[in-house]
Amino acid sequence: MEKEEVKLLGFWISPFVQRVKWALKLKGVDFEYVEQDIINKSPLLLELNPVYKKVPVLVHNGKVIAESTIILEYIDETWKNNPSLLPHDPYQRSLARFWADFSENTLIKLAVEALVTKGEQQEKAVRSTMEAIDKLEQGLKGRQFFGGDSIGYLDLVLGWISYFLPAWEELGSMKILDSSKFPAFTQWIDDFLSHPVIKNDLPPPRDEIKVYFVEISRKIAPLFQKIE
Amino acid sequence: MEKEEVKLLGFWISPFVQRVKWALKLKGVDFEYVEQDIINKSPLLLELNPVYKKVPVLVHNGKVIAESTIILEYIDETWKNNPSLLPHDPYQRSLARFWADFSENTLIKLAVEALVTKGEQQEKAVRSTMEAIDKLEQGLKGRQFFGGDSIGYLDLVLGWISYFLPAWEELGSMKILDSSKFPAFTQWIDDFLSHPVIKNDLPPPRDEIKVYFVEISRKIAPLFQKIE
Repeated sequence: MEKEEVKLLGFWISPFVQRVKWALKLKGVDFEYVEQDIINKSPLLLELNPVYKKVPVLVHNGKVIAESTIILEYIDETWKNNPSLLPHDPYQRSLARFWADFSENTLIKLAVEALVTKGEQQEKAVRSTMEAIDKLEQGLKGRQFFGGDSIGYLDLVLGWISYFLPAWEELGSMKILDSSKFPAFTQWIDDFLSHPVIKNDLPPPRDEIKVYFVEISRKIAPLFQKIE
Repeated sequence: MEKEEVKLLGFWISPFVQRVKWALKLKGVDFEYVEQDIINKSPLLLELNPVYKKVPVLVHNGKVIAESTIILEYIDETWKNNPSLLPHDPYQRSLARFWADFSENTLIKLAVEALVTKGEQQEKAVRSTMEAIDKLEQGLKGRQFFGGDSIGYLDLVLGWISYFLPAWEELGSMKILDSSKFPAFTQWIDDFLSHPVIKNDLPPPRDEIKVYFVEISRKIAPLFQKIE
């Protein structure tokens, strides 16, 4: 078989990149990883993703795909071998897409707000984040993964929670992932992080995540103060 | 064949609902349309979409699907007859999804900002909106529709531009859809609005759109002032 060109432009701590790396590894696709400087953006990144100038960018035999959830769908449609990332049933697919969108557009913002705010605003954001996680708790319904017996699209999109949120809890002196309230979801975190593919390509250790987000929190905190 | 239950909860001027109506009609799917009060939300809407409490909601044989682009994918995967809404090729699919996402998350916000702001801020937003439309102009590349010879997923997602933007231009005393700058895209608007399915289910007339957005603009203008 002809050698395929599969290149992933990424950034070490980006959860959007991490989910694409995991998807390629789950599918058994060999790829070249190219770390990017997201401050001083490379000519390559600007050329390949002129619209958003962001990672991840996947290059497959000259074709360029951007936006992590779109890349996940591309991977699933291009490498059709197991595991399927999305379920086959259209309704189940719509549910996976719905909760993925919920993670991207609602949950992550609430969790970041809880991380970077203080006092009453933080308490409110923590409550809202917990309400959001409760919806995922209900959604698991006795399954090991959101994808059923194997890790799928929604598991990958939610992956950031498994390693960012415990670090954010420490940084923000808050408790969100309460195993007595969320027994299924906290078990999901353990199972997800113990999965062979995930375990062999773990995200950065908690200390590095914390150092990174101390800096980031300072930068984005004013955004939330304006909204309040 | 057993009679299918297909019900669409909508709101008369919502472009997110309109695209779903058009998709069902393109596919030849009979459905019941149920108008919703989006201020005093009905128990039915709260029950069917407890997460966002928003239209559109599609009910198909008891299954409930929310979020318009997710509904479009569900329709395409459930009623597989022509026209296909998304292309078959994974890369072409990823492009349609990328530009649809660009419309939802970038273009519509720029156009709304141009509508509700004034002076320099409006001029800047008009320029940014035109830059965004220029990307779509380039994307058409000699095709009649973004879906090729027939209206597809991306055409439906971009549909709001064809009837909202001319009304917004009048309201905001601005010019965005310049046919000398965007010959392909302004031709696309004509062709889109002349398509038999679209023509038979046109959105509200321009005067009604204008009346509606005079009110809406007053409400959302402060949001943009804060950002500036």
